[in-house]
Amino acid sequence: MKITLAQLNYTIGDFAYNTKKIIDYIIRAKNEGADLVVFAELAVCGYPAHDFLEFDEFIDLCEKSAEEIAKHTFGIACIIGIPIKNEQSAGKDLYNAAYFIEEGNVRNIIKKALLPNYDIFDEYRYFEPAISFNCIEFKGKKIALTICEDLWNINSNPLYISNPMDELIKQKPDLMINIAASPFSYLHDDERVETLSKSAKHYQLPLLYVNQVGAQTEIIFDGGSLAFDKDGNLLDEMMYFKEDFKIYEFTDNKLQGLNPINHQIVPDIAQIHDALVLGIKDYFDKSGFKKAVLGLSGGIDSAVVCALACRALGPENVMAVLMPSKYSTDHSIDDAMDLVNNIGCRHEIIPIKEATDAFDNMLAPAFQGLPFNIAEENIQARVRGILVMAMSNKFGYIVLNTSNKSECAVGYGTLYGDMCGAIAVIGDVYKTQIYQLAQFINKDGIVIPVNSIAKPPSAELRPDQKDSDSLPDYDQLDKILLQYVELKKSSDAIVEQGFQEELVKRVIKMVNSAEFKRHQTAPILRVSPKAFGMGRRMPIVAKYLS
Amino acid sequence: MKITLAQLNYTIGDFAYNTKKIIDYIIRAKNEGADLVVFAELAVCGYPAHDFLEFDEFIDLCEKSAEEIAKHTFGIACIIGIPIKNEQSAGKDLYNAAYFIEEGNVRNIIKKALLPNYDIFDEYRYFEPAISFNCIEFKGKKIALTICEDLWNINSNPLYISNPMDELIKQKPDLMINIAASPFSYLHDDERVETLSKSAKHYQLPLLYVNQVGAQTEIIFDGGSLAFDKDGNLLDEMMYFKEDFKIYEFTDNKLQGLNPINHQIVPDIAQIHDALVLGIKDYFDKSGFKKAVLGLSGGIDSAVVCALACRALGPENVMAVLMPSKYSTDHSIDDAMDLVNNIGCRHEIIPIKEATDAFDNMLAPAFQGLPFNIAEENIQARVRGILVMAMSNKFGYIVLNTSNKSECAVGYGTLYGDMCGAIAVIGDVYKTQIYQLAQFINKDGIVIPVNSIAKPPSAELRPDQKDSDSLPDYDQLDKILLQYVELKKSSDAIVEQGFQEELVKRVIKMVNSAEFKRHQTAPILRVSPKAFGMGRRMPIVAKYLS
Repeated sequence: MKITLAQLNYTIGDFAYNTKKIIDYIIRAKNEGADLVVFAELAVCGYPAHDFLEFDEFIDLCEKSAEEIAKHTFGIACIIGIPIKNEQSAGKDLYNAAYFIEEGNVRNIIKKALLPNYDIFDEYRYFEPAISFNCIEFKGKKIALTICEDLWNINSNPLYISNPMDELIKQKPDLMINIAASPFSYLHDDERVETLSKSAKHYQLPLLYVNQVGAQTEIIFDGGSLAFDKDGNLLDEMMYFKEDFKIYEFTDNKLQGLNPINHQIVPDIAQIHDALVLGIKDYFDKSGFKKAVLGLSGGIDSAVVCALACRALGPENVMAVLMPSKYSTDHSIDDAMDLVNNIGCRHEIIPIKEATDAFDNMLAPAFQGLPFNIAEENIQARVRGILVMAMSNKFGYIVLNTSNKSECAVGYGTLYGDMCGAIAVIGDVYKTQIYQLAQFINKDGIVIPVNSIAKPPSAELRPDQKDSDSLPDYDQLDKILLQYVELKKSSDAIVEQGFQEELVKRVIKMVNSAEFKRHQTAPILRVSPKAFGMGRRMPIVAKYLS
Repeated sequence: MKITLAQLNYTIGDFAYNTKKIIDYIIRAKNEGADLVVFAELAVCGYPAHDFLEFDEFIDLCEKSAEEIAKHTFGIACIIGIPIKNEQSAGKDLYNAAYFIEEGNVRNIIKKALLPNYDIFDEYRYFEPAISFNCIEFKGKKIALTICEDLWNINSNPLYISNPMDELIKQKPDLMINIAASPFSYLHDDERVETLSKSAKHYQLPLLYVNQVGAQTEIIFDGGSLAFDKDGNLLDEMMYFKEDFKIYEFTDNKLQGLNPINHQIVPDIAQIHDALVLGIKDYFDKSGFKKAVLGLSGGIDSAVVCALACRALGPENVMAVLMPSKYSTDHSIDDAMDLVNNIGCRHEIIPIKEATDAFDNMLAPAFQGLPFNIAEENIQARVRGILVMAMSNKFGYIVLNTSNKSECAVGYGTLYGDMCGAIAVIGDVYKTQIYQLAQFINKDGIVIPVNSIAKPPSAELRPDQKDSDSLPDYDQLDKILLQYVELKKSSDAIVEQGFQEELVKRVIKMVNSAEFKRHQTAPILRVSPKAFGMGRRMPIVAKYLS
């Protein structure tokens, strides 16, 4: 039998769009001779639909989409992910399910048992776990269909106390199919290949795996759907960060005509680059906006964001606003203009002196001659915030935030100032990675000006300011942050790795003290296993350990 | 035997403080002749500790606190809530548990089975559900100890498929004790009495229930611990919004010396008032701040927040900043000054004209003579945001946000402008409730100026502007919002209740379009069953249904 995997980009809640796309691919699969076409987890409504799932109307619309899709399953069967009602009176109201549809009818309903509820996942908020399991019988074969996490519980410290496949295997299936919504991080593609390979081998069954692709606000799905033989050898790997569509011949209990291949090893920074470009593009496409605006300082962060935005949206749709102050160095404007010229985006230059002077005057009576401090520094950042937001409000541009993960971590950013924006493009990319990203962007010719890369980082909010005045070297800082944020190590454990105790404590204290700022930050495109935002939920008012 | 309930206010992660408080109350209970003292769910670390629970160091410190507490349990036993490690290799790493400690040793470990994961709750993110249940034997009696949600699964559409008490009852217990962290909403105290009464009656056992009290950022615990007889009659109700401590005599399988009483019926608005005052007070106390600053417009919202802040922190710790523009009416300043004089807080007057003029000039080339619109309106709000934040940065005041729930719902607020602040005091209080709150504050004499209450609401961002220019009457608006936000009704269902279709669609569209703003809002003190913030998780980029 011929089985098609459709790796598609869905829009959350856009039933007309998703349904049409699914039907188009059913028709295409049928035209290409397929017997079965497989779509991803919760394909009908998009993932993650969050509290939309708590609206009865939303669930009814999912069911209506399935009815529409079913009309196109004559001569071809399909598998689609869909949230369905729990008809029992006890338990949560929904299941995360899949329909197997054939000849216009739902022949099987498969329910998910293992509901991820860590990091960005909240599935147990909505869904009741499945407790019974059945294979799908199709054309004389038995298919063990599982949904994402149901095939991920294979390791020495499993998160769940049961494995759905341990039940399904008793029914002697011929093939495993797993439908997923498995988000990108720069580590995740390798883990995915390894885990699924282990499952195929463990159960001694060929495995077809289909993922979603596309960004949903902060969450980026990278595609990379996979085929394995029964010994866990990788046979095929679909495209990353793009929609894709493949037909596999499954005969004699084997995926035919495919030989073992190696998993494509792509450098982390190249993956992050592609993920961020897709993240920007889908944010705009799916919310119906075309044009972006950002503050361009001459530094490396805003230069990188500007370059990524131009790749995602086209330079004609990107407006860079240069907002020099009396503390801006000449090279800042020059470096920013070099980027604008390299890249061909639009720009405005609006010096901020008139507004900062106005605030100095207005606040003079209240400030009673107290010395220049963080208050005046923040006024500059906030005046820039007002200007960028004014451009947004006047022309309908969407503001891109340019804060990196290192500064987001330690609170080295001004709330309502440089922390403005609808989407934080590089908020999950450490400063040391930003340099790599700039080099990667420049690999086929200079885009990011060499001087923006080479000069010491500075916020330029007071004379001769350098980031290194208040922050440790980024090289040290980022390593400590990784231990604390990603790996949740204690200060003692980090010190044991050879970092200076005082430095570790200072960094951790900065991270903790900035929790209130991060609570009000823009959504951050997630590219690491632990991004700030919905995946990291820390108390604001609390006593922290360090 | 004498059983004490200790209804206390904990600080998340402050092990030294929580441990000392628990030990102090053990000593007090012992001195007063008690045999057993009962503390709330997760008392050792505070609730909700969020992702602190994922740090090994945090869990180790919980265990150390328990060891310290155990040293004081000679001659008196205690029950404390504590997160503990799951020693099995399969399943989540932790249990939400309680220790029964006697003579220096943990005699029983009780684990929670039903893990709330809706609204503000994320317990399945951290905890493995219990699957075995045992009573505590103490002084010849069997105590069925359950943790919060474990006793809440009694209704016709239960959220969970099992009830721990159905297992425990087989062991023929003499008494039920439930330890909780049950947050306030203006509906919740009634539900709590009803549900627990039903449980006592159903299992035909007396019931002692102890709750936490105090605010943890947005979540407010209201206390109100309870005692019931075996027929579900309420026997005692501890204080609301205050720490409390009571000793009960349990002899002959009865709570002695108590007669059935009625649950105290307190008007919603009085409860909301007390909750908000506690919410402000604990935000400051627990984060070590003393002084607040807010923008005071002369309107009712900021007046109410100012009055609540003065009650929570003392008027000497509240700074009101009056920031008139050319669109401000004379009465705005007069009304604001009336409040300042009524209440005795500090104030500054800083007209915003100089800054708004500066922005007009600076933006003139980019704006190319385009007409006044939302861009200029927002600049005024953002200039005020900068001024209030500058006062905060210069003097260390914490900014109180003054947005109400109605405007937060429909996006009638300026991001980085009037949406600034560390904590949103009335962000869960609809505009129609704000009027009631103002009347309540004025019940013993005028605090909120009559004119602030009587005049038509206006943002005063353009000449003769009224809220009613762009918003429906608050009376209609708030009713529609309640249906959509709290009750998750579809537009059709709301129209069926007699609201005009066009109006309903317009309101829902406004709510949906403001999702990106609410994502960046300050934490909101939660007083309703469905507040904006962590309890309502909606996609940002998505196609909404209306």
